[in-house]
Amino acid sequence: MVKAVFPGTFDPPTKGHINLIKRGAALFDTLDVVIAVNTNKMPLLTPEERMELLSESVKDLSGVKVTLCNKLIVDYAVENDIKVILRGIRNVADFGYEFELSMMNKQLKSSIETIFLPTDPKYFVLRSSSIKELLNFHADISGMVPAHVEKLLKRKTGGY
Amino acid sequence: MVKAVFPGTFDPPTKGHINLIKRGAALFDTLDVVIAVNTNKMPLLTPEERMELLSESVKDLSGVKVTLCNKLIVDYAVENDIKVILRGIRNVADFGYEFELSMMNKQLKSSIETIFLPTDPKYFVLRSSSIKELLNFHADISGMVPAHVEKLLKRKTGGY
Amino acid sequence: MVKAVFPGTFDPPTKGHINLIKRGAALFDTLDVVIAVNTNKMPLLTPEERMELLSESVKDLSGVKVTLCNKLIVDYAVENDIKVILRGIRNVADFGYEFELSMMNKQLKSSIETIFLPTDPKYFVLRSSSIKELLNFHADISGMVPAHVEKLLKRKTGGY
Amino acid sequence: MVKAVFPGTFDPPTKGHINLIKRGAALFDTLDVVIAVNTNKMPLLTPEERMELLSESVKDLSGVKVTLCNKLIVDYAVENDIKVILRGIRNVADFGYEFELSMMNKQLKSSIETIFLPTDPKYFVLRSSSIKELLNFHADISGMVPAHVEKLLKRKTGGY
Amino acid sequence: MVKAVFPGTFDPPTKGHINLIKRGAALFDTLDVVIAVNTNKMPLLTPEERMELLSESVKDLSGVKVTLCNKLIVDYAVENDIKVILRGIRNVADFGYEFELSMMNKQLKSSIETIFLPTDPKYFVLRSSSIKELLNFHADISGMVPAHVEKLLKRKTGGY
Amino acid sequence: MVKAVFPGTFDPPTKGHINLIKRGAALFDTLDVVIAVNTNKMPLLTPEERMELLSESVKDLSGVKVTLCNKLIVDYAVENDIKVILRGIRNVADFGYEFELSMMNKQLKSSIETIFLPTDPKYFVLRSSSIKELLNFHADISGMVPAHVEKLLKRKTGGY
Repeated sequence: MVKAVFPGTFDPPTKGHINLIKRGAALFDTLDVVIAVNTNKMPLLTPEERMELLSESVKDLSGVKVTLCNKLIVDYAVENDIKVILRGIRNVADFGYEFELSMMNKQLKSSIETIFLPTDPKYFVLRSSSIKELLNFHADISGMVPAHVEKLLKRKTGGY
Repeated sequence: MVKAVFPGTFDPPTKGHINLIKRGAALFDTLDVVIAVNTNKMPLLTPEERMELLSESVKDLSGVKVTLCNKLIVDYAVENDIKVILRGIRNVADFGYEFELSMMNKQLKSSIETIFLPTDPKYFVLRSSSIKELLNFHADISGMVPAHVEKLLKRKTGGY
Repeated sequence: MVKAVFPGTFDPPTKGHINLIKRGAALFDTLDVVIAVNTNKMPLLTPEERMELLSESVKDLSGVKVTLCNKLIVDYAVENDIKVILRGIRNVADFGYEFELSMMNKQLKSSIETIFLPTDPKYFVLRSSSIKELLNFHADISGMVPAHVEKLLKRKTGGY
Repeated sequence: MVKAVFPGTFDPPTKGHINLIKRGAALFDTLDVVIAVNTNKMPLLTPEERMELLSESVKDLSGVKVTLCNKLIVDYAVENDIKVILRGIRNVADFGYEFELSMMNKQLKSSIETIFLPTDPKYFVLRSSSIKELLNFHADISGMVPAHVEKLLKRKTGGY
Repeated sequence: MVKAVFPGTFDPPTKGHINLIKRGAALFDTLDVVIAVNTNKMPLLTPEERMELLSESVKDLSGVKVTLCNKLIVDYAVENDIKVILRGIRNVADFGYEFELSMMNKQLKSSIETIFLPTDPKYFVLRSSSIKELLNFHADISGMVPAHVEKLLKRKTGGY
Repeated sequence: MVKAVFPGTFDPPTKGHINLIKRGAALFDTLDVVIAVNTNKMPLLTPEERMELLSESVKDLSGVKVTLCNKLIVDYAVENDIKVILRGIRNVADFGYEFELSMMNKQLKSSIETIFLPTDPKYFVLRSSSIKELLNFHADISGMVPAHVEKLLKRKTGGY
């Protein structure tokens, strides 16, 4: 049995995230979607909001659960008997950063593998930070996030 | 049950390949190591020699088998009910090429996933083509290929 | 009046090429599609075949013509009073190569500009060389080249 | 008639910017130099100062005007019947970022094209943020910005 | 006689830094390890602490001295008759940034050369910023920094 | 005393090569310019011609000598008590390749260092292979190679 984890900030969750979660869930016996809460950046959404949005998005996927985490991801993996960290890659720049992160995690805990799944070309331009910037301009983000995510984002940023 | 395939030319198989096969075998239920024989490049080793060298290297790994293949790798995957193409990535340049290849394979057969596993830093410089070049200079390649591979390479290139 | 040129080998022309030609034609007063014939690589299609295939593809675009050329592209541009070399870019690796080429052309003739147009994501994996390789495996290339190109390719490679 | 826009923060405008504006003005019927004012970063120069500096720099170029903008650049383009967003590229790292941005803009408004013009090698190291850092050290920036820009920068940062 | 300088923030100094200093000291007649103190980022360690930690680390290397500097590194080099700026490179992303910086320094003072030394693969993942982040999670950093550095870091961040 | 080697194919030597040799000669006590003769590519110039052209180019530089070599460069370095392999870098793509090569050489002989010197921006587009291609088109290469190199190239390729 091989268990995997898909860590992220998910501020907000995008259609790209959901696509990766679905594809990852088909590859491993269980997949924990882990929301990193211990970051310095000021998030737009509270951890609880992100938890709720993601839980709604994955409710039909068997073997997938959503959790909050304020530890190193390798520590989370060890405690939950997880062997694989799953990461999506959209392009070469993403990869450079992720490759280095994977080496650091390997150094911290050599038994845990990071694997990279290429993002679906439909979602190449989906980046949570861009979506937040587009929100400032009241741009149409309906192609970028699930409907229930869009609804909350609009409510939180002035209901435009 | 998730079956995977690790395709390559393996001319010759390196310690980096063996390391990836071991790690991949631990992630999936079965792993087919597939030697691509339909390439234009003039190989140093015959397909049969590569088959024998790889089979010897993986003989203790359960769920792993070695085969020859002269088809598109996605066709091999479909015929063998395989869901995952496993590829090792040593650096950003590797990734650029592999990313494009993965998109082409996705376009040919969207149900098959390519996943990337970062090469162990110990094997960052192992490239089959470099090993062949080093052989021309009688350089010491004992750190780069398994002992039984080195033995055959020396026999074939003049027993230096 | 700004005239542009879109040079390439077009062996074979792909849907990605046609997409770039259409978009380029909308940006400049005239667009010459120039088939480079003086290359060392052994082409699959004769220059005349490529000429015919491209001409058929662009026949409805005003201001676009197809020509053969065995000179440096900057010399062609100077002789035809062309100010812009148009190039499509699919990814970072493409860009590295194209950027260097543009600097060389600028050095040869500083009055001529190279501009880069990003490839439509639908065509990110379209590379003439990949299509030729897929032909060897009788893979389905109908999504990659126009129908009349596919027809000729099949006739030339054994009508599979 | 093809109209283009050259958006930027221009804090401060550099010789590299001016070089790109001149070259872009020669390629399109009109070129709007658009100063993005709705950014989170604390600028060194006010929008009005940047407007004045740029206007002075382009006063002899026909078809070029300078404007302030607090909208998405694609919205500005649509409202002004502009077909082309012009961006300068200095190197591969620039390109990775710009490529992604161009895909996002294409997704927001598919009729608008982003084209990339390679920076003149003389200006490869000109980055507005570096110039601001060099100002802190009273370094000589006369090769990097037009004289009237340098004058204002010195006045604003203590007249060194 | 060729004198070199190895500039950095060293917040904190890592085993990767020490490795580069040792290798650089073997290549040039003298090597000044220069701590940049005039940066905007809020450091974890005071300049004096970094000075002490580095001095301890290099005390057995002849020709090496540690200094604080709040000037442009090219100005420091000119004043101290130094011809070479030494920089370590861990990967392609590092290089893109460093290459641009080297061109800026060359433009500021053309007589001074920047040379790049590849980081030892053992230290590919050592980045001062990552170490500070790992400290937040009480991760084991003993493989990343010298023992006396680890001791101070633990004392400063709560003695975990 | 630190001795260095600058290896290459030099087919033909370019102004970029000469620039790097001059700068390298100023950094180390001696610099051997080593022409690799054991390559598979069919050269345009014979090893002896390249030897003569380079010798002429460096005749006024003290500490520099030109030699032919058909061994691994690390073996040449060991035999000649050389500590440094000097390589020029023109861009990120160059670096990817060179970085990997440097790691291979480090693995073959850990006491020998590879250092990278950035190419002068004036020579960013100088690549021996491009020059050979330009020769086919009788393009003006006088800015790319020294006069005596141009003379021989013209004589060998038909005296255009």
